[in-house]
Amino acid sequence: MTETSHDPRTGAVNGEVAESTVEEVRSAVRAAAAVAPVAAATPPDVRRDWLAAVADALEADLEALVALADAETALGATRLSGEVQRAAGQLRFYGAVAADGGYLRAAVDTTGGQHLARVGVPLGPVAVFGASNFPLGFGVVGNDTASALAAGCPVVVKAHPAHPLLSLRLARLAQAALAAAGAPDGLLGLVVGHRAGVDLVRAPEIAAVGFTGSQAGGLALWRIANEREVVIPVYAEMGTVNPVVVTEAAAPRMAEIAAGFVGSATLGAGQFCTKPGLLLAPAGSRAAEEVAKALRTADPAPIMLTAAIAEAVSTGIDELVAAGGRPVDLVEPSGLGWSAPAAVIEADPGDLRPGSRLLAECFGPVVVVAEYDDAAERDAVLARLQGALAASLVTAGPDDPDGAALARRLSGQVGRVVVDGWPTGVAFTWAQQHGGPWPATSAPTATSVGAAALDRFVRPVAFQDVPDAWLPPPVQQANPWRVPRRVDGVLEVPR
Amino acid sequence: MTETSHDPRTGAVNGEVAESTVEEVRSAVRAAAAVAPVAAATPPDVRRDWLAAVADALEADLEALVALADAETALGATRLSGEVQRAAGQLRFYGAVAADGGYLRAAVDTTGGQHLARVGVPLGPVAVFGASNFPLGFGVVGNDTASALAAGCPVVVKAHPAHPLLSLRLARLAQAALAAAGAPDGLLGLVVGHRAGVDLVRAPEIAAVGFTGSQAGGLALWRIANEREVVIPVYAEMGTVNPVVVTEAAAPRMAEIAAGFVGSATLGAGQFCTKPGLLLAPAGSRAAEEVAKALRTADPAPIMLTAAIAEAVSTGIDELVAAGGRPVDLVEPSGLGWSAPAAVIEADPGDLRPGSRLLAECFGPVVVVAEYDDAAERDAVLARLQGALAASLVTAGPDDPDGAALARRLSGQVGRVVVDGWPTGVAFTWAQQHGGPWPATSAPTATSVGAAALDRFVRPVAFQDVPDAWLPPPVQQANPWRVPRRVDGVLEVPR
Repeated sequence: MTETSHDPRTGAVNGEVAESTVEEVRSAVRAAAAVAPVAAATPPDVRRDWLAAVADALEADLEALVALADAETALGATRLSGEVQRAAGQLRFYGAVAADGGYLRAAVDTTGGQHLARVGVPLGPVAVFGASNFPLGFGVVGNDTASALAAGCPVVVKAHPAHPLLSLRLARLAQAALAAAGAPDGLLGLVVGHRAGVDLVRAPEIAAVGFTGSQAGGLALWRIANEREVVIPVYAEMGTVNPVVVTEAAAPRMAEIAAGFVGSATLGAGQFCTKPGLLLAPAGSRAAEEVAKALRTADPAPIMLTAAIAEAVSTGIDELVAAGGRPVDLVEPSGLGWSAPAAVIEADPGDLRPGSRLLAECFGPVVVVAEYDDAAERDAVLARLQGALAASLVTAGPDDPDGAALARRLSGQVGRVVVDGWPTGVAFTWAQQHGGPWPATSAPTATSVGAAALDRFVRPVAFQDVPDAWLPPPVQQANPWRVPRRVDGVLEVPR
Repeated sequence: MTETSHDPRTGAVNGEVAESTVEEVRSAVRAAAAVAPVAAATPPDVRRDWLAAVADALEADLEALVALADAETALGATRLSGEVQRAAGQLRFYGAVAADGGYLRAAVDTTGGQHLARVGVPLGPVAVFGASNFPLGFGVVGNDTASALAAGCPVVVKAHPAHPLLSLRLARLAQAALAAAGAPDGLLGLVVGHRAGVDLVRAPEIAAVGFTGSQAGGLALWRIANEREVVIPVYAEMGTVNPVVVTEAAAPRMAEIAAGFVGSATLGAGQFCTKPGLLLAPAGSRAAEEVAKALRTADPAPIMLTAAIAEAVSTGIDELVAAGGRPVDLVEPSGLGWSAPAAVIEADPGDLRPGSRLLAECFGPVVVVAEYDDAAERDAVLARLQGALAASLVTAGPDDPDGAALARRLSGQVGRVVVDGWPTGVAFTWAQQHGGPWPATSAPTATSVGAAALDRFVRPVAFQDVPDAWLPPPVQQANPWRVPRRVDGVLEVPR
């Protein structure tokens, strides 16, 4: 059995990749389990250097990676070139976070008649399922892989069927770079094929799962993990409808807002998990008309990542209309390859109800616009939305009378609140949070981007009256890894 | 419908407590949801004062609480008096952790072209299911309740059927103390009855569940939560077999080790989730005989918390024998009230296999002893154990040649490793970890005791380009709550 790689612009076949056999999956998992104690015992600054070697290798191979990624995704050379650089930056960033050591949450109690030390220990081999829409940033060496490796966990990646050739190239490139940097074999494995992915989650050696993609895909893996004898954490970051709320005071800027909204919603053909999918604007703001005008001006010619996604855009538009949405504008597909339509759908606030298709994600360049009569109606709609990754609040600036309350309200429903900006674009920094309440993520306290991404892959262990030499280095008296620690409750930061 | 309170020493009825109606559960949940924004916006040092008021009230009511708790649990005045003081200490400790603010993990990025701030926001109303065996420490105002309130979440407790009168008294006492301290109504609710507990977990307003008890109970709640439309985190801390490993070099001390082991295993009639349930000792150490001798010397007369627990001890012994265990010593029950037998069961290492009853918890004064032939057999048995809350490693001191490797191995399987001590007794301190791999807990990265207990009840949110005045105080520029923060990656600790 093979997976076929296609060019989305034409539908032509790029090549075939063999699916992993049962034995190949077992072998990748066994290798990861065998190397797990070595990875865990390796000082984080060494792991940082391993990751930096992979980053260097990505940059050295940039042109070939971009060409291959573009042939499989049609995302374009500019975007993909930036994404290679982003992936390299992420690898270096997570390495720096590991070397900092704060993620270990080391704590030592010396009073109270016993010596107690608490520190994060790596969970063990992690299964990573990357995203279709970020072949590099959330791919084989993307956020999940980089943060798991940084935290000291081996990784087995399941290649994404939308870009199997790129997955294979990335895995080989990363494996070679890791080996050249002195990392042990088995630290990074790749498996191909749907059955291989299921086997991976069921493998007893696998200690956690990272996933980026659709709710259907993420919840399927979550259910499989929950049926294991030893249930493991599944960190699934899933697509949701990210709302944009325009305040009364911001409404006069609607033409400008609509242009920004459409720009964000059609980026990458609308294939962002942070795509703003719903615009809530005050009545009389002519929001739907302005958004439709902006879409016609933008004149997108969306090419989707896969035939199934292209099909789902058309189906999704039909379903939105069947659920009471009114098409305000529709850009017809070009008809080439995996082209898809783009659409602006207007909805009545009263139709935005739990369970309605109007409140479920339509992955692609499709947006829903609704006008609210007053604050009560606006807040009632917000209360009915699913948990989401991000929300944008469009205001008249810091003096906007509705700003503070709306920012607070939205913070209870999403993982990230953006004021006077757009939700697409997720910086990999210390303060980032890319997650959100169920069903945006299966683990609402986790993030898949930013420094705290490492937290997902360590489990705290307390050591009671354990001799110093037997302790993990972060809680040994000499603090050889120089990590921040709570000592008798007082936070000590090494200089 | 009522729940009946019994005196375990005699089986006599202490009294009846009415089960909550459907409407009473709804009302408690609605009150908690209504007060959630107030609790979340209250500065942590004010929440600390609320908790201190409850602590003061516990201490002021100590005698009456001990008498009532003893009538319902037969745990004895000394133990229960200590537990009242412990519960008070915990309330003050979690308040101090809240006031410290480190649990908020505040971070601010000011570079990179955008202002990004990340901080934990309280999840909302938490449902707490306390333990049978710690009516105060893990009861209505125990670890889960105290840490959730400290983190800014209202709590609705489900009264434990083993001590419904005490639960009621504790709830009223805490509610009065909170009101007197100026806390808003609805912050702490109590519901009674099995159906009420299920309704509580299903209530849409409930945002998380804390549970301490059996695997059967915890997993039942976990399944109910996983069937919700919005799945919520369940922090279930469940009973497991906590292993004790005696090294070759420690074997000559077997008589002393056996006495310590029996003391720990029969504490509170063996009704500790951290009870050491399995002793692995070197062949020829006469471990089973020494443990049996120690049990005869201790001469326990166990009275269990409930009739069902007492019955389960006898049944459990039969099942252990049916699974291949050999009874080495059996202390017959006194026959009074909910008395139960105590037993030492010897097992062959080869019979300690996944799925065997010999590797499942027997809640009560029952232990399994096995002798290993060599390090390979010892490690093979360890590899087959379930995840556990704690393990003890008994050594010949820091020079023990097997110590470091065994401490490392055990740290991969449990939440706490104790060297030359016993697992019972869990200090509430900064470095504590009371959790462990599945099935010791449903959330292996969480702890139900210690400073990190608060982490379970906040969810990080990122605020992107949000005006300073609209931000939660911990990430406002002036840092009015004076919490530790990462600013552009650098950890800053207010002095």
